[in-house]
Formats: sequence, C-alpha cells, structure tokens
Amino acid sequence: MAVYTEVSNDDIAAFLAEYEIGQALSFKGIAEGVENTNYLLIAERATFIVTLYEKRVRPEDLPFFLGLIEHLAERGVACPRPVHGRDGKVLRSLCGRPAAITTFLPGIWHHRPEPRHCALLGEALAGMHLTSADFPLRRANSLSVLGWRPLYEALNGRADELLEGMSGELDGELRRTETDWPEGLPAGVIHGDLFPDNVFFERDRLSGLIDFYFACNDFFAYDLAICLNAWCFEPDGSFNITKARHLLSAYSRVRGFSADELAALPLLARGAALRFLLTRLYDWFNHADGVLVKPHDPMEFYRILRFHQGVTGPGAYGLDQAA
Amino acid sequence: MAVYTEVSNDDIAAFLAEYEIGQALSFKGIAEGVENTNYLLIAERATFIVTLYEKRVRPEDLPFFLGLIEHLAERGVACPRPVHGRDGKVLRSLCGRPAAITTFLPGIWHHRPEPRHCALLGEALAGMHLTSADFPLRRANSLSVLGWRPLYEALNGRADELLEGMSGELDGELRRTETDWPEGLPAGVIHGDLFPDNVFFERDRLSGLIDFYFACNDFFAYDLAICLNAWCFEPDGSFNITKARHLLSAYSRVRGFSADELAALPLLARGAALRFLLTRLYDWFNHADGVLVKPHDPMEFYRILRFHQGVTGPGAYGLDQAA
Repeated sequence: MAVYTEVSNDDIAAFLAEYEIGQALSFKGIAEGVENTNYLLIAERATFIVTLYEKRVRPEDLPFFLGLIEHLAERGVACPRPVHGRDGKVLRSLCGRPAAITTFLPGIWHHRPEPRHCALLGEALAGMHLTSADFPLRRANSLSVLGWRPLYEALNGRADELLEGMSGELDGELRRTETDWPEGLPAGVIHGDLFPDNVFFERDRLSGLIDFYFACNDFFAYDLAICLNAWCFEPDGSFNITKARHLLSAYSRVRGFSADELAALPLLARGAALRFLLTRLYDWFNHADGVLVKPHDPMEFYRILRFHQGVTGPGAYGLDQAA
Repeated sequence: MAVYTEVSNDDIAAFLAEYEIGQALSFKGIAEGVENTNYLLIAERATFIVTLYEKRVRPEDLPFFLGLIEHLAERGVACPRPVHGRDGKVLRSLCGRPAAITTFLPGIWHHRPEPRHCALLGEALAGMHLTSADFPLRRANSLSVLGWRPLYEALNGRADELLEGMSGELDGELRRTETDWPEGLPAGVIHGDLFPDNVFFERDRLSGLIDFYFACNDFFAYDLAICLNAWCFEPDGSFNITKARHLLSAYSRVRGFSADELAALPLLARGAALRFLLTRLYDWFNHADGVLVKPHDPMEFYRILRFHQGVTGPGAYGLDQAA
C-alpha cells in the first residue's frame, strides 16, 4: 500500500518504448497492492497499471502469476491482462525491479460489502476456479498448513505480548490442524488473498479481481474459506450468516460442492483464520521501523479463529446439503 | 506523499452526490502532494483529484488557496480548477476533513529537469505572478525571514548532530539574513514551493502547476529564488548555470526584473536555501515514528546554502543586466 520505488520520467519513457501503447500522459504512484509498487499510467492508447515487484515477490514466481492472469483474462474472467511488449514479453525490468504492465480495471472496492456483493464474489470465485483448470503451470502453496509452524516458531512466544496465553493456544490449534487437515479435496489454482480490497465493483457488477500474487495450487474450498473470513465478519467481530449464505450458495451454483468439501469447510475456515493470524502476528512483531505500511491488527483473526472453533458443521455458515 | 485518510465507497458516493460530475468509476489513493491525502477520481463526466486536507493545512487558509487556483485557472494559468458543488461551494467535508475536488491535469513531472524545462518554468512562473495581481485575498508568508528564527530555536542545537558546528553557522546566517533582508521589492502572490514534483509537462509543453498550499504574499523574486534552488542544482550538488540562465531569462521576458530585484537575488537565494534547510532539519528531528513520509535530506540545502554564500552578484546565476 505504498510506493517503494520512485520511477523517473526518463525511466518510464524508456520502458514504454518497448510497448505499443504510446507515451505517458500521466503517471502516478497509487496506494494499492500488498507488497508491490503500483503506478496508474494514462498512456495515449488507454489506461494501465505498471507494477514493480518488490522484495516479497520471488521473481521465479512471476511467470506463474502473469501467465495465470493472462489465461484467466483471455477466458473472460474479470482480471487485469498483462500487456505484451514489442518483443512479445510481458515481464521486463524497471528501476532494477521486475516489472509488468497490465490493463486497468474500472471499479471501486467495498469497505463494507453487502450480501449481494458476497454473492457476486462467490460466483466470480467459482468461475475463476473452473477457468484455471487447464492452466498448465503449478505453484505450491508455501502458506498452507505445513508453512504455518515455521511462522509460529519465528514468533518465539511473543503472541503472549498481545494476549496472555495466546502462544500456547496457537500451538494446540496448530497441532490439531496439522493432524486433521483434509486430503484429496477438489483442487486447482486458488487466489489465496481475495479480501474486499482485491475485488472491484462497478454499480451492480463485479468488474475485477486483482492482486494474484498469492495465487497457488490448493483446495478450492480453502480459497472459499479465506473469503468467508475476509467478507462475512462485521467490524465488531460478529459473523454475518446472511453474507456467508450468499457467498457459498452463489459459489455452489457455478461449481457444486462435494460432500467432503462441505464437511471440511469448518476446519478449512479455522485453518484459514490461523494462517492470517500467524502472518499478521509475524508482520506485527517484525516490521522494520520506518516502513511505509502499517501492519494489520492480528486480533481480528484471533476473534475469527475463536468463532470457527465453536462451529460444529457447515450449517453454521448458512449452508445445508441442499444448497 | 501518502494516503493518511481512507475514504470508503459509501463516503465518496455521499460526497459526489453534492456535485454534478456523476458517480465514481474508479477511486484510488495517490502518492502526491506534500501533506494532504489525494485520490484520483475517474467519474462519469471526467477525471478529477479529490483532496482531503490533513493537519498541517490550516482550514482558515483554504479559501485563499482554493480561491487562488480558481482565479488563476480562469485566467489561463495551467493549474487545477476547484469544482463547485450543486450548492456553489468548493469546500466541504469528507471523513471529518475539509475536502475539495479539483480538475485533473495530465502530464508528468521531471525528476531531472533539463534547461528547456527550466525555461518553461520561468515563463509559467512569471505568468502566474502577473495573473495573481488582481487576486483580492492576502495571506502572509509565515515561512519568510521572521519565521525562521523560531524554527532554528526549536532545533535546540541538534543540527550539530548532522554536522559539527552547523548550529553556530546557522545562527550567524540567520542574523545576517535578518539584517540584510531587502524591503520594497515587487511583491504579490507567490507559489512558495515550486519544486519539480509540482510542475507537470506534456511533451514539450508545461501542462500544470500544482500544490499551492504554501502560496502567500511575498516578493516575486523570492519565488524565483526558491525555483533556482529547486531546479538548478544537480544531484551531486553542483550548480548548473545553464539551467539558471534559462529559468531567469525566460522569466524576465514575461515579467522584467527591476535593478533592485536583480541585486537582491543572491541574498534571496541564500534565504530560500536557509528556509528549506531549517524546515527540513525540523522535520528530520521531529518526525514521529511510524509516520508514512520519509523526511527529505536536510544536507542537500546545506550545500545549496554554501554555494550561495560564495556568490557575489547575479552574474553567478548566468544573468547580466541586459537579460
């Protein structure tokens, strides 16, 4: 959510010479994206986003991310489409960082999504899951269940500074999740980070999914569990079952759930809460002074985790077998 | 250079209902402006900038700033024009902050301006000075010579932490400037902060002057001295007399200098260097941990000040009486 790399006019002019989109009429750093620098570029032909990939993105993952959004956009998923240079490439270098140009998507994101937005999200997410089926590249989810314990260890018990006893609780939760995590559920490419700020709406239409830089191969239902946590809890921490029902039933109309997926949903939601709680705790205790990004409050996901611990079946999410 | 206030979609929708520019198609926080929050708004009718005025801008100064740019824009100066709401007002409130919508100016700023850009700047600055002549409001320059000593006192000798002996040097420089500061030079509304990032170019045309939030009444030649410091020194600290000659001679073709102004220029440039050195030192030692803006390096202006201390007449800036 910050501009980490300043790009001069000479830099951008030289960069744009490799494309056929004309010169820059306007070029402004924008507060968007998790860890990258983004500029809004108004060029002679159209409007674009220029992204410089900063240190948290591994360059070797970029062909996966850029290939994925191209694959999806070509098949009608509302997501940015990478722009090819004169040489055919979509990835080159700008100010010493890997960089790419993608198409600009109009729309605004909703800080407080309503049930109808959750339904549109469910529909789009299922569409994305189906559309990625024949995408040939693969990327393992380094932030799935096996990646959580190293994060926990790196915290060194400091979670207790936020809440006495949290560290022990997390250890128990981790053990349980490691033991019970499901196997063999329907899987494919998931977005992995579909929070409201990554979903644009234009009036009553979902106009774009953005920020695919956590995309990877994992269970589809785990992606849905991430959305459940990110979209269906109110600012006061309460769970909004109406939003959940809209999300899940719209999803299932496009891609129906298996019985196994449905049964696994409470544990997946619990795992998804644990994953974001751990990364937020890590960022909370490890952000350097003077960084430009305020870390998110980890306690939000502690409360979400506590909610799911009390869930006994998918009915708690408004979903019954008939959905 | 950061987004201090997050504006939700509901907030902006309610705000835009007061205007006749249609709904928001896109609304993105941008890294622009000194101390305010700016959003780029693509509305149905056109593209705009929405500015929320943060704590460093005094609300009582806003009628001056907004009135000034409206006055200038109406008379052909390339600067943002405030958009009037249905009720005729240009200033209202958004997320608890004073806020205004202004027109969007295309163009990019030059990190390393060339002599021709300095000439375009000189021409535009002189035009702005002439055009503001009949602007009826006044605002004193709180950062003119009498405002510098309080800044110096607030440093409490800490300049020595950056360079041993700097504090004493600054005291001497201040005394000299306070004693010798000129009186009675041609005066009017100055921009006061016309650094390269506040000047947009579109191909070979100057397309916009922005960020008038230091504008005030002062000597015109002092504004030019600020530009001399901001535009004519190279990254290595050397003075580029070609750029200075382009700046000053283009200016003087639009608004000719008096002999007094010309003679005062070395002292005004010295004072302008001192002013930015003092504010940068103040920000350097007083920025709160966790603020989103990296303070500028004060030493850049120490070196500029040292350069001007060695100047004996306006010829050092490439300008002779005949210009």
